[in-house]
Amino acid sequence: MKINENFLKLESSYLFSTVAKKQKEYQEKHPDKEVIRLSIGDVTKPLVPAVISAMHKAVDEMADESTFRGYPPEHGYDFILNAIQKNDYANLGIDIKTDEIFLSDGAKSDCGNIGDIFSVDNKVAICDPVYPVYLDTNVMNGRTDIIYLPCTAENGFMPQIPKDEIPDVIYLCFPNNPTGVTVSRKQLKEWVDFALKNNSLILYDAAYKAFIVDDSPKSIYEIDGAKKCAIEFCSFSKTAGFTGVRCGYTVVPKELVFNGQSLNPFWARRQATKFNGVSYITQRAAEAVYSEDGKKQTEDVIKYYQRNAKVIYDTLTNEGFKCFGAVNSPYVWMQTPNGMSSWEFFDDLLDNCQVVGTPGSGFGKSGEGYLRLTAFGNYEKTVEAVERIKSVYGKDK
Amino acid sequence: MKINENFLKLESSYLFSTVAKKQKEYQEKHPDKEVIRLSIGDVTKPLVPAVISAMHKAVDEMADESTFRGYPPEHGYDFILNAIQKNDYANLGIDIKTDEIFLSDGAKSDCGNIGDIFSVDNKVAICDPVYPVYLDTNVMNGRTDIIYLPCTAENGFMPQIPKDEIPDVIYLCFPNNPTGVTVSRKQLKEWVDFALKNNSLILYDAAYKAFIVDDSPKSIYEIDGAKKCAIEFCSFSKTAGFTGVRCGYTVVPKELVFNGQSLNPFWARRQATKFNGVSYITQRAAEAVYSEDGKKQTEDVIKYYQRNAKVIYDTLTNEGFKCFGAVNSPYVWMQTPNGMSSWEFFDDLLDNCQVVGTPGSGFGKSGEGYLRLTAFGNYEKTVEAVERIKSVYGKDK
Repeated sequence: MKINENFLKLESSYLFSTVAKKQKEYQEKHPDKEVIRLSIGDVTKPLVPAVISAMHKAVDEMADESTFRGYPPEHGYDFILNAIQKNDYANLGIDIKTDEIFLSDGAKSDCGNIGDIFSVDNKVAICDPVYPVYLDTNVMNGRTDIIYLPCTAENGFMPQIPKDEIPDVIYLCFPNNPTGVTVSRKQLKEWVDFALKNNSLILYDAAYKAFIVDDSPKSIYEIDGAKKCAIEFCSFSKTAGFTGVRCGYTVVPKELVFNGQSLNPFWARRQATKFNGVSYITQRAAEAVYSEDGKKQTEDVIKYYQRNAKVIYDTLTNEGFKCFGAVNSPYVWMQTPNGMSSWEFFDDLLDNCQVVGTPGSGFGKSGEGYLRLTAFGNYEKTVEAVERIKSVYGKDK
Repeated sequence: MKINENFLKLESSYLFSTVAKKQKEYQEKHPDKEVIRLSIGDVTKPLVPAVISAMHKAVDEMADESTFRGYPPEHGYDFILNAIQKNDYANLGIDIKTDEIFLSDGAKSDCGNIGDIFSVDNKVAICDPVYPVYLDTNVMNGRTDIIYLPCTAENGFMPQIPKDEIPDVIYLCFPNNPTGVTVSRKQLKEWVDFALKNNSLILYDAAYKAFIVDDSPKSIYEIDGAKKCAIEFCSFSKTAGFTGVRCGYTVVPKELVFNGQSLNPFWARRQATKFNGVSYITQRAAEAVYSEDGKKQTEDVIKYYQRNAKVIYDTLTNEGFKCFGAVNSPYVWMQTPNGMSSWEFFDDLLDNCQVVGTPGSGFGKSGEGYLRLTAFGNYEKTVEAVERIKSVYGKDK
């Protein structure tokens, strides 16, 4: 039996696991200290009442033979596909059919599994820094021909269209994880036009779209022609606090054709064969996010997190730190002080302030010298965390 | 962008989707007829009270900031891993550690995704007939060197150890889907010894173990040496009616070493990168299956289905049909009458009796001439279905 040796090329531990392990070790050594976690992008506010109520109702249905539901449709119940179509696409003037939407247990699974439907022999473009899943899953699949697109302070953290080589597959994520920057319609159109011209596929991660407050595109399909070149990943994790509930969806338009084959039936077949649908209770929970109450309640939670982003950004900027993101995004991308490396600052911050961030270098070498802070915490604790940072690294120090 | 052309080698539709489509079309043409479905292995009894109560409690925890849970641990919360370890392994005298157990959204996902951790260049042995996922996922991955192990009436539907070639990976499923037969300890030991001798990996699907009533092995790890050659897949779908809830687990022992590499960290890394854990509410539901009430209540449901299996088997056997399985299994493997092909009998049965089975040939060519009937229906409807079959195809006809 031959193992998949590509796994040996991976870093042995997943970035967020390493961060969690370091935090745990610190906490065990210092049980009296209160550690504040602005690291992993995990939400902290409870599920909203509309969602809770829908889940209780669905649980009760599962208790009664006449309303019990067994295997869900592999790609999602009509009620949730219709809600997504109407609220996330038709309302933006985008024509997406329900059989182009695939419900799943989360955008991470879909971003990771999407590589199943395309060949190992593709040149892949990935931003640097980047959400590690894009890179690691390609390495696992044996795709080692990677074009890195550096995102630095010099280019406003916006990936530049490669000049010397043509990528077959391009991963883009806006609002961006980890840098927190958003793409404009004009910038996104350049990528779509490039993909159409070169027969490239864009994999567009829109997991953070709920944080957009200006007129930045919420979907790549707002750009003409995108249905012929892009797959879009969305998630309820950040929109509605579903990190512990697990639900997302992926859009694969039928017009997306490569080598004469529409990718839509490829993904449909992949999911029908290697996945068995999403919990009925979770699907009802997701549906409730689109109810009138659900929308209002989840918007309030987003606003709460946006206030956190603002207080992190404003406080640190006032103290002379160079920070990016925070608008249209739950992430603040903070330059480390005194030329420290990302992991040096991570350790220093944990030791001195008991604040956990995510080292920028963990997202790629262009992330070196940065730390990602997230706005998903409790407001008071977030204020406390930035006050601690101010007291140790602020301009008076 | 180059697509994964292996997908073009697949049958265009997944077996159960085709069956569902035919049923739907029939029902639309004949809205007045009551179709009884003994096809897909989907349960019909509601979740038991212990599970319902645990889910309501977990939903309430998700409504409160102090008890809310975000991202679950990627491989499962300790509470459920401990319950699995104790009840499914320690109680059988098997020493499996909690970090060798990986909770997931179902055995189908795991059976489908496991191929990620081994090389495309492996010779794979698969029973014929077989659960289509094993074959289809290998085809998708580009593994076309397949050894089919025919399971026929002549060999008691028991796969025979291949004489001429050595498989690298061997899929086994007991109690078997679709034939319903169970392996004895002696037979399973032969496979384990063969794998150990030849450095092969056994992928053991134990999704139906809750149906075992005699002393057949409930886990491959009951066999000495299996921890050095086998991965085991388990599911709550059939044990506790979780088909609509989605939960299963996979055991990858640390002693499982190939090419000098333990497969345990490979699967841990695969799951941590391409999966984000199971819903907290679902994990609490699974935990409740192992509570005192949960055990008693789920056993009663299993007994209910076992009575269905018995009535199908006894009635059809009395009518002169050749049937297999039904003991230790929710499946009855029925030979078609009058030399009909599987799909001919499927269509005939739908037209004449409004009963839906699953065509044996859909599981592989050695399944031709058989139909799989399942015991997961309502008892009265199951009786009605076999009475209809008796009235059209019985010995008096």
